[in-house]
Amino acid sequence: MKEFELIAHLTKSLPTNENVVVGAGDDCAVLDLGIREKLVLFKTDAVVEGIHFTRETPPEKIGHKALARCLSDIAAMAGTPTAALVTIALPKDFDAEFVRKIYTGLNALAERHGVAIVGGETTTNPERILISIALLGTVPRRKQILRGGASVGDAIFVTGELGGSLADKHLSFEPRLAEARWLAEHFHLHALMDLSDGLAGDLRHILNASKVGAEILKSAVPVSRAAKVRAKENSAAKPAFVAALTDGEDFELLFTIASKEAVKLLDACKKQFPKLKLSCIGKIVAGDGILIRDKYGAHKFNGHGYVHFT
Amino acid sequence: MKEFELIAHLTKSLPTNENVVVGAGDDCAVLDLGIREKLVLFKTDAVVEGIHFTRETPPEKIGHKALARCLSDIAAMAGTPTAALVTIALPKDFDAEFVRKIYTGLNALAERHGVAIVGGETTTNPERILISIALLGTVPRRKQILRGGASVGDAIFVTGELGGSLADKHLSFEPRLAEARWLAEHFHLHALMDLSDGLAGDLRHILNASKVGAEILKSAVPVSRAAKVRAKENSAAKPAFVAALTDGEDFELLFTIASKEAVKLLDACKKQFPKLKLSCIGKIVAGDGILIRDKYGAHKFNGHGYVHFT
Repeated sequence: MKEFELIAHLTKSLPTNENVVVGAGDDCAVLDLGIREKLVLFKTDAVVEGIHFTRETPPEKIGHKALARCLSDIAAMAGTPTAALVTIALPKDFDAEFVRKIYTGLNALAERHGVAIVGGETTTNPERILISIALLGTVPRRKQILRGGASVGDAIFVTGELGGSLADKHLSFEPRLAEARWLAEHFHLHALMDLSDGLAGDLRHILNASKVGAEILKSAVPVSRAAKVRAKENSAAKPAFVAALTDGEDFELLFTIASKEAVKLLDACKKQFPKLKLSCIGKIVAGDGILIRDKYGAHKFNGHGYVHFT
Repeated sequence: MKEFELIAHLTKSLPTNENVVVGAGDDCAVLDLGIREKLVLFKTDAVVEGIHFTRETPPEKIGHKALARCLSDIAAMAGTPTAALVTIALPKDFDAEFVRKIYTGLNALAERHGVAIVGGETTTNPERILISIALLGTVPRRKQILRGGASVGDAIFVTGELGGSLADKHLSFEPRLAEARWLAEHFHLHALMDLSDGLAGDLRHILNASKVGAEILKSAVPVSRAAKVRAKENSAAKPAFVAALTDGEDFELLFTIASKEAVKLLDACKKQFPKLKLSCIGKIVAGDGILIRDKYGAHKFNGHGYVHFT
């Protein structure tokens, strides 16, 4: 908790200026630099050896993951990424071929999404590789979607399937940039973010910012195959549904929209992205926190952890 | 050299797009995001414990240095900084008060230069503190000054005094933002950069990018008091003049301008910045590399190291 307390303290009194539309606390910072129809999105994200990947991780996937995480934050604002800087801190005995392959994975993802890599630096970190990506993007004015806009009665949606990302998805996911832009262009989303800390923790960010609560229908939460396999094969693992609520690094989209739009959205999205799983998992309610509704009733879900459902 | 070779390889084939005006290789990347009269500057820079500072460095100065280095790169493009993101990687046992003081130093510098701190992140780096700053700025269109514009006959100028920065200046220097903007507004500078690797090494970046050579007048190079004291007190230290040529982290401005403008520039600058030392240290010549002229003649200065003057 020390880290959260520190961040809360540090972000209380940061220097600001007239260019800042959204400062610390959302998926990206939002800046007004005087572009007629657009605002600028600005984001950094770091991955560290031993925490986000290991020496055994294929280096192409390390590069992919480093950039993909940052791109997912641009998707979380329904934005378009423009250019990135890559900071790579390396032990002195680094293997140049390993580093080249990191760039191979990173560059391939950048090319697919039209992102220019405009420099960066290499520096020394004696004990482990650390990669920090700085990313610039844009979003049409009045189209940027923050975390604080959810209203009572909204339907809550997620893309894809949740949980078990550590099996492989955290290294190979494709950020939902096209999906987020299309959703924001065609529907009036109230709140939007990407799932990095797990559905329960991230949904709580929207609830706190919007001063509302949520009721989640247990049977509607899309649980990934990876989470189910893990729960089945390992009796000590979390139950699959709990994994879907609390595992990190899903990098799916979580958003809310007026419930009268929900069916139209499901239909239109099916046509536009036939392969995309899109699930309405519950609704925004008055109050605070998360209620899970199953066949036995509704139960408060506390913290990021698990409470037993009886 | 492995690092330089790696960078040369990596920067050869980076993804690009129509927004890129200047990619990897200058002080900042330059992007055209469609702002009517401005281009966007984009830069990252990292400092690492044990390399750029130690646990004994006053934390306020660590924060100051981390941001100041990056601001100096915006100065090197005659730009104006707008907003920064701060990534701080910390050992698990970090001292929250130490980190708060890092921010105190960083925020104070940001406030002085009108820079908004719009977020960032804390992450884990178990063995040492690493701080990476991502910075956005702007520069008027057609006013950005690169490294490749030096012409034969240009006068070469530096601000301040050189060498001996490790005594204290590397932790406390004020980036030359106002000076660089004023120079670019009032004079047609041909090439401009900030001194981070030492005069000889950095001048060579301008020479290589401009395909020219330089002749430096030994007696005109402004040698810092810190470099002189160090050379005097420690017989094993570099001679002070060599320190001025090869010590890193001066963070002064190095620029070239048509020689017929040189006297006018010295006069006007004296009026605008009465306390600023500005020195004309030599001229751009045909050929390549650096010649040092002293009372014995002109001698080629090879590499970043020292050649004995007889």
